[in-house]
Amino acid sequence: MRIVPCTLFAHLKKLIHTPTMAKSKFEYVRTFETEEKLLPNSWIVVRIDGRAFHQFSTKHNFKKPNDSNALALMNKAASVVMNEFKDISLCYGQSDEYSFVLRKDTTLYNRRAPKIMTYINSLFSASYVFYWSHFFKETKLKYPPVFDARVILYPSDENLRDYLSWRQADCHINNLYNTTFWALVLKGGLTNAEAEKRLSGTLSSDKNEILFSEFGTNYNNEPEMFKKGTILLRKRVKNPKHGKTRVVVLPFHEDLIQDSFWERNSEILGIKTAQHYEWPENTPLPLLVLSQLHLDPDRDEELTLIEDTT
Amino acid sequence: MRIVPCTLFAHLKKLIHTPTMAKSKFEYVRTFETEEKLLPNSWIVVRIDGRAFHQFSTKHNFKKPNDSNALALMNKAASVVMNEFKDISLCYGQSDEYSFVLRKDTTLYNRRAPKIMTYINSLFSASYVFYWSHFFKETKLKYPPVFDARVILYPSDENLRDYLSWRQADCHINNLYNTTFWALVLKGGLTNAEAEKRLSGTLSSDKNEILFSEFGTNYNNEPEMFKKGTILLRKRVKNPKHGKTRVVVLPFHEDLIQDSFWERNSEILGIKTAQHYEWPENTPLPLLVLSQLHLDPDRDEELTLIEDTT
Amino acid sequence: MRIVPCTLFAHLKKLIHTPTMAKSKFEYVRTFETEEKLLPNSWIVVRIDGRAFHQFSTKHNFKKPNDSNALALMNKAASVVMNEFKDISLCYGQSDEYSFVLRKDTTLYNRRAPKIMTYINSLFSASYVFYWSHFFKETKLKYPPVFDARVILYPSDENLRDYLSWRQADCHINNLYNTTFWALVLKGGLTNAEAEKRLSGTLSSDKNEILFSEFGTNYNNEPEMFKKGTILLRKRVKNPKHGKTRVVVLPFHEDLIQDSFWERNSEILGIKTAQHYEWPENTPLPLLVLSQLHLDPDRDEELTLIEDTT
Amino acid sequence: MRIVPCTLFAHLKKLIHTPTMAKSKFEYVRTFETEEKLLPNSWIVVRIDGRAFHQFSTKHNFKKPNDSNALALMNKAASVVMNEFKDISLCYGQSDEYSFVLRKDTTLYNRRAPKIMTYINSLFSASYVFYWSHFFKETKLKYPPVFDARVILYPSDENLRDYLSWRQADCHINNLYNTTFWALVLKGGLTNAEAEKRLSGTLSSDKNEILFSEFGTNYNNEPEMFKKGTILLRKRVKNPKHGKTRVVVLPFHEDLIQDSFWERNSEILGIKTAQHYEWPENTPLPLLVLSQLHLDPDRDEELTLIEDTT
Repeated sequence: MRIVPCTLFAHLKKLIHTPTMAKSKFEYVRTFETEEKLLPNSWIVVRIDGRAFHQFSTKHNFKKPNDSNALALMNKAASVVMNEFKDISLCYGQSDEYSFVLRKDTTLYNRRAPKIMTYINSLFSASYVFYWSHFFKETKLKYPPVFDARVILYPSDENLRDYLSWRQADCHINNLYNTTFWALVLKGGLTNAEAEKRLSGTLSSDKNEILFSEFGTNYNNEPEMFKKGTILLRKRVKNPKHGKTRVVVLPFHEDLIQDSFWERNSEILGIKTAQHYEWPENTPLPLLVLSQLHLDPDRDEELTLIEDTT
Repeated sequence: MRIVPCTLFAHLKKLIHTPTMAKSKFEYVRTFETEEKLLPNSWIVVRIDGRAFHQFSTKHNFKKPNDSNALALMNKAASVVMNEFKDISLCYGQSDEYSFVLRKDTTLYNRRAPKIMTYINSLFSASYVFYWSHFFKETKLKYPPVFDARVILYPSDENLRDYLSWRQADCHINNLYNTTFWALVLKGGLTNAEAEKRLSGTLSSDKNEILFSEFGTNYNNEPEMFKKGTILLRKRVKNPKHGKTRVVVLPFHEDLIQDSFWERNSEILGIKTAQHYEWPENTPLPLLVLSQLHLDPDRDEELTLIEDTT
Repeated sequence: MRIVPCTLFAHLKKLIHTPTMAKSKFEYVRTFETEEKLLPNSWIVVRIDGRAFHQFSTKHNFKKPNDSNALALMNKAASVVMNEFKDISLCYGQSDEYSFVLRKDTTLYNRRAPKIMTYINSLFSASYVFYWSHFFKETKLKYPPVFDARVILYPSDENLRDYLSWRQADCHINNLYNTTFWALVLKGGLTNAEAEKRLSGTLSSDKNEILFSEFGTNYNNEPEMFKKGTILLRKRVKNPKHGKTRVVVLPFHEDLIQDSFWERNSEILGIKTAQHYEWPENTPLPLLVLSQLHLDPDRDEELTLIEDTT
Repeated sequence: MRIVPCTLFAHLKKLIHTPTMAKSKFEYVRTFETEEKLLPNSWIVVRIDGRAFHQFSTKHNFKKPNDSNALALMNKAASVVMNEFKDISLCYGQSDEYSFVLRKDTTLYNRRAPKIMTYINSLFSASYVFYWSHFFKETKLKYPPVFDARVILYPSDENLRDYLSWRQADCHINNLYNTTFWALVLKGGLTNAEAEKRLSGTLSSDKNEILFSEFGTNYNNEPEMFKKGTILLRKRVKNPKHGKTRVVVLPFHEDLIQDSFWERNSEILGIKTAQHYEWPENTPLPLLVLSQLHLDPDRDEELTLIEDTT
């Protein structure tokens, strides 16, 4: 009777004697790695989410209900990611989350889910720290933030649009709640618990009414970035300095639930190259764009324009 | 004959009319998310890897073949991760990679692979940027670094040990090569191409001989961190200030291929609580430990000691 | 220092003493099971394949290049599966393989891949043995056949059509080869090796020419089932006995690569209910249909008509 | 601006014009297939389960609470599977389920989960029908049975033993219940509902008491196969005809929860080759073994002995 060792590799290992073979002797452990490839011809969405950001925002004195600098920093970090990975055709961000939409036909990293998910998340996280001081001049970053990431597949254009609509509806609902809550607390003098109780069971219309009648606030006039979140798209724009056009990542704060958004920006679902975007007259270029055109005073060394290859 | 819409959800959506139901109307997209849970009772290894770190090291003038500051920053970022996730029982780092070993019985995030992988990677990436200036006083970080992460399961203790042995053997082979290569280039005046050609096909013994006979370098006397990489373990140490003991993350640069390492540190495979570690007399505490004991001059606000709950 | 057992469950198990708790003591092993759910809103294809069917066909004296009875048995087994699982909208079979297409919006077994795959495969395998003697009156089944199964997702209608086109093109290529090969062997007197050599490197046109000039066979006149394989569709037909209509599984041997197939059978991609199918005049009903209409002499007890619920 | 088609493959397909390239034109669909490989160095368990077997057993007049022929047929089908796949080292069956344990180090089908799962399930299902008439001489099989299959990984020997203990404990609990239930119904004259009510909330000891005091049945004397299920092991036995030894699949009905079982059969966990098994004197060989030794009157043509290669 032959005694056979329990494990697959014991026999193999016994065959190896010289020290220089040490590495190859252990290399069998690579067979334990897996390679999860994402289904072809489906939209890939990577969504990142801040961990314990309620506490993070408190520790860093974020303005309530919305801190424009914190949101601008999120947008900046997302734009770094979008500039790095050309197959991202749209990003959508609100609060402490950001969604990155990769083209249906992307072959980035052979569609390996962990690679795609972790690279995007790592670059976002590192960029958030890297650019912190650009947006918070006075507040020092107290500790490194953490984001998780997940990857989701959407087989049809309709599913993708519904996903983004879901996130934007979530932004709307949360922002209306938060705006009313903090009005009650900061202007109305209620405690957090009292404000929470007051809002319990209220409809959207009730919250609008509270804002208007008690605090003179017309919710419709609140900043679009707060109400709609931020959509990043790749567009060709004219550099105001010398008039040449360049492709840059551009922030929008619009209703993406409506068909008209998708008609105006038809390159997202169907056309690969960025479309031309004409600045509304007398509208200053957003800071996010200025830095990409090398027109900001604190020019970032590492950011290069997207090459115009079309 | 009844015409039925193609998609699963069209009918559902038609039932919803009021604007306040907008969010729930889209919420079906959550069913497209997956939850990959890792097999119970298996070692979980998360390995992160720098992306394009050759270029990164050149741009930031890392010393060749090894930059002690760059390695110390890697160790620092890993120690932040290890302090945050108590179920990590060992970390192993070399070059631009780090492996995190989670206990077989961890239930962290319900063993959901993406959560575990992305949190560790995000915190590492953010910490790398956050602590950059602690280790590089003169060199400004030029752009955010990027790391990927993967998760691997090892069912047996032997498999886990073989995995770590594989990484340490890899460290040894690469470091011997790099040490010889850069000696030939920096001291021997060869071009990169010439040095590469010279080393092509050489054995370990040949490289040792080149180092010794041509450059008077005994490879055995090279720093242990370069030859062995860094092992992070959780140990109970005496605070030299007041003599009380605390559990801290401690760096080791030892041969983990030998059985003796696992006998000395039997808590890794079998015992949950950190063991006491007696400082060799006249050995200064590593900086990594000082900061955890709040004994470093640039005390980090966010780092708290691991609570002593045993 | 507290010694903690290595495995997750040892502590739990020690808490349990009485014999009646024996089962629950071991029940933790259920947590090792996984539940792989298939992406929603995508076509699910299950393809089964005979294992070692070359040998099986030899042992059972199947006619070469095609055995009509063997193909009819495959079709019968597939029709049993299709009658059992109403969300299968199309089956395609050729040689020893069969593909089952489940509707994009099916929620069968919660879209759990192993359940869907193994139920279809098990019922097919069992039916193949069960109905063997209906198709092979003289040849006894010598041993149980084996089929494997795989599951594949196709996100778009185009991908699904291309999949089916791929299988039908495969059928065409193999059948043309086999028809020529066996003509050379059975009529031309070549050995298998000689026939293989003769066909090596030939194009379709060459094989057509060999068949025509050497054996007087016009490949176009070969039976459609051999050239095109078998498509099973669910159609409403008139029962010739009493004129009432019923939904049955109907075999077709047509070109499904062309658009016209999909226009004629538009219920596959878009409409849920079976369409009416008018028998071409003077065409006898296929046996496969007769048995479903209870019009065959050897009526199968277990086969019930699909209920007419529309 | 360049219009790019939505799908990954449209461009590719346009490049292909000739009819002979038809197949390769569609072949891209293969990239949608996945290859789920099971973690190395872990026990692989495939468990199959009858679908709607309550109804199946009623339709085929199975004896209550246990039908020896039905169990023997299950054992026969499992033994066919075990004889076909040599890396199955143990099978355990009870009621309408069977578990197949593949060695930790098996490389069968490259450890691809669907292949392993569907081949075992298909061969079992086909064998069940194939051998039906050997065990049910008078009852015709009315329709093909269906089994599902799942695959589960167990990293440690302890986990595997606990899995099997769980199934055997399940067998015990169900059989005690069923034995008592059917005694109450068949001998006690209760209706099914009355028997169910009578047993609701009873402990094992209560059921033993009912059997003993009301029906004179000592549960301990019930057949071991009913109480313990069936364990199939590969053992070397002496052929009573000519005295030579052969390796065959042998049925046991023992307590596998105890350590002693694993000590007696140490080849399961640690030793690859089958151990010698000495028949208890005056014990007739089980039919399952006779057929493997070609000693049964109805010799099965397809069953060949396992070759003695050690």
